[in-house]
Amino acid sequence: MASTVTPPRGMRDFLPHEKATREHALGVIRHSFTAHGFDEIETPVMEDSARLHSGLGGDNEKLGFAVMKRGLREADVSAAVESGDLLALADLGLRFDLTVPLARFYATHRASLPTVFRSIQIAPVWRAERPQKGRYRQFMQCDIDVIGEPGQLAEIELISATSAALDALGLTGCSIRINDRRILTALLAHWGVASELHERALITIDKLDKIGVDGVVTELEGLGLGTAGIADTLHAIGNAGWDLAGESAPAWLDPAAYADLLGLKAALPQVELVFDPTLVRGMGYYTGTIFEISHPDLGYSLGGGGRYDGMIGRFLGADVPACGFSIGFERIVDLLASDATAADNAVVLVHDGDADPATLVALKLALVAQGKRVRLTQRTKNLKALLARAAADGFGSFAFVSTAASDEPSVDAAALEFKPLSD
Amino acid sequence: MASTVTPPRGMRDFLPHEKATREHALGVIRHSFTAHGFDEIETPVMEDSARLHSGLGGDNEKLGFAVMKRGLREADVSAAVESGDLLALADLGLRFDLTVPLARFYATHRASLPTVFRSIQIAPVWRAERPQKGRYRQFMQCDIDVIGEPGQLAEIELISATSAALDALGLTGCSIRINDRRILTALLAHWGVASELHERALITIDKLDKIGVDGVVTELEGLGLGTAGIADTLHAIGNAGWDLAGESAPAWLDPAAYADLLGLKAALPQVELVFDPTLVRGMGYYTGTIFEISHPDLGYSLGGGGRYDGMIGRFLGADVPACGFSIGFERIVDLLASDATAADNAVVLVHDGDADPATLVALKLALVAQGKRVRLTQRTKNLKALLARAAADGFGSFAFVSTAASDEPSVDAAALEFKPLSD
Repeated sequence: MASTVTPPRGMRDFLPHEKATREHALGVIRHSFTAHGFDEIETPVMEDSARLHSGLGGDNEKLGFAVMKRGLREADVSAAVESGDLLALADLGLRFDLTVPLARFYATHRASLPTVFRSIQIAPVWRAERPQKGRYRQFMQCDIDVIGEPGQLAEIELISATSAALDALGLTGCSIRINDRRILTALLAHWGVASELHERALITIDKLDKIGVDGVVTELEGLGLGTAGIADTLHAIGNAGWDLAGESAPAWLDPAAYADLLGLKAALPQVELVFDPTLVRGMGYYTGTIFEISHPDLGYSLGGGGRYDGMIGRFLGADVPACGFSIGFERIVDLLASDATAADNAVVLVHDGDADPATLVALKLALVAQGKRVRLTQRTKNLKALLARAAADGFGSFAFVSTAASDEPSVDAAALEFKPLSD
Repeated sequence: MASTVTPPRGMRDFLPHEKATREHALGVIRHSFTAHGFDEIETPVMEDSARLHSGLGGDNEKLGFAVMKRGLREADVSAAVESGDLLALADLGLRFDLTVPLARFYATHRASLPTVFRSIQIAPVWRAERPQKGRYRQFMQCDIDVIGEPGQLAEIELISATSAALDALGLTGCSIRINDRRILTALLAHWGVASELHERALITIDKLDKIGVDGVVTELEGLGLGTAGIADTLHAIGNAGWDLAGESAPAWLDPAAYADLLGLKAALPQVELVFDPTLVRGMGYYTGTIFEISHPDLGYSLGGGGRYDGMIGRFLGADVPACGFSIGFERIVDLLASDATAADNAVVLVHDGDADPATLVALKLALVAQGKRVRLTQRTKNLKALLARAAADGFGSFAFVSTAASDEPSVDAAALEFKPLSD
């Protein structure tokens, strides 16, 4: 049965109207990033297994799709079984993020890149996650990164380019929550959490949105952490934002890191920048500023990033400063999907089956030359269904091509009478 | 050493100027195809192994990259070794062409598609070929297909859209060689080649460009085929093109197929259409018209296609007419590469390291708002190298941002003095 013919589990096809929405959004994002001085690059979808499993990818390394060696023989396979290393059967893997490939690309091409390299990567990644609503095994990532800039200009350019892209997409009401890993560290130290427990405590604080202040305190207690004053601090932080640190800044607030954040705020007057001292961001590799896109109507972020000095230079054996921002493309395109409207310049020419192909194509070319998008459609019994399909596919108007009236069918595009396609 | 960090064998990175050329070309092609009424779709890069190995892919099936099953256990692997079926270790594979995924997509979504579906697929494919000059293991394909149209309108729309795309890319001098499988069949029958030997004989005729008439005759003789008259016919065909079939059409020329080709010629006055009765096209699945893009300066084709009725409906169990045209994107983009020129609206702002980031970003935003693409660059000792890098990256002019002159650095973009970047 036709219904059993599907894409692989957790992966999607895109029909014409979906693909058009996606390409439009990608074009807007690409244009914004490019205008802001970022340069797009591309890497192969596969990387050597050893690089994908070098520890830069965190938990995502476990979700990689492995590509089998070509020309494997039974002896190779038996040897892999004996050694207990089944991954030896794979020499390549599909990338699970765009950061590992960027580190590899930078190591390969540093000599051909500017000293401060601002990269754009707009490309799919693959993760063998359990498929669920909104989570796919192939999905697009839109990353920008500034490599080689230790100063705040990196953060400023990243946030300002991302904010411009969101504006250009017409996503209003977004704000950027911002924090610094140093502030989190000072906060935990203030609470008396031993540094070896910081990572575990941050996992709990990261759940604040979901489990609330009481939930966080309970979970920290369960970990055997002293929790005196934690609830008070978390309540005080609440939504205080920048007001939190007036003349009487709280004792837990790292002053140097906070001064840096104030610097970012001053340099980004066009961006709704919200200071959130409890913002954690999952990945453990962040070293300084971290940020996340929030939307008031949504319970999840639309993207995020931060500074991750020291990681991009790993394959180079060098210490290279880096900062990145990733837009959650799949979530954003879902918000845009309903905006797809019929294009006025997309027209359907409805013809009879006995129309002369040469005439039809001449008409079509004349309209294309006027900047129109033209679909030829043979008239069917169910004209209504035919027009509804064209409207759903994004066409705005239609005209009948009459070839019966004369022996010499007209190729005069000006004589066509276009009517709007109702949808 | 850095030089040992490379992309996987046979696969390429694209640096900013290369990526820009590629995206520009893809945008031009996409726009041409869309204007001509084709609809872009997308499928996942992976398909189920069983579909990739269903016989639709010809010899390319052997070149597929196989993706290992997730969560494989040693027992599964041992079982695969015992059964001698190592491919059982893979449940998915990377697509090696865009035709098998199109057949799968059509089977999945036919109910949501127009009766005559004109698809665009612009996407990478992977083949584990021995890497060599101009042959890569990951490369882009740009395919258009018309599904569900048995008549010549399919061929006419495909050739006219492809020709428009080549024009829009600025590739002048291209012609389309055209033939029909039925003409080849009649030609072989005229020569007395038994039908079971047609496929083998076509492989030889396909080499005419390389081994010449004598080479073809010798090779056919070597196959034990009667070759009386073959040399004469091949010489007569030569470059005669449409002149071959005047009032005294040769006996070997299938009259119905030739009449169809004349119909295409009449409907495509804007295309340089060259009749070549010896054009074969490699893939065995073609059933009617076949065509290929030729360029007078090149010894290889820039793309091709033809009618392949019966194949697209395979997963549906239905007989569906189909015709397709594929542009050889990698070859075409190589021809365009040298055309990449610096964009006048791409500017570099050269600043001192002590410049205020807020000022720099305000200047940048003011220029971006004017439609410019702006790169901020800190001045280095070797200014010449810095400017040469910017020129190579496609920037057209630069200006110095002076922040030393006053305590309040100016954010007046109008005061910047831009000079052209020589390259």
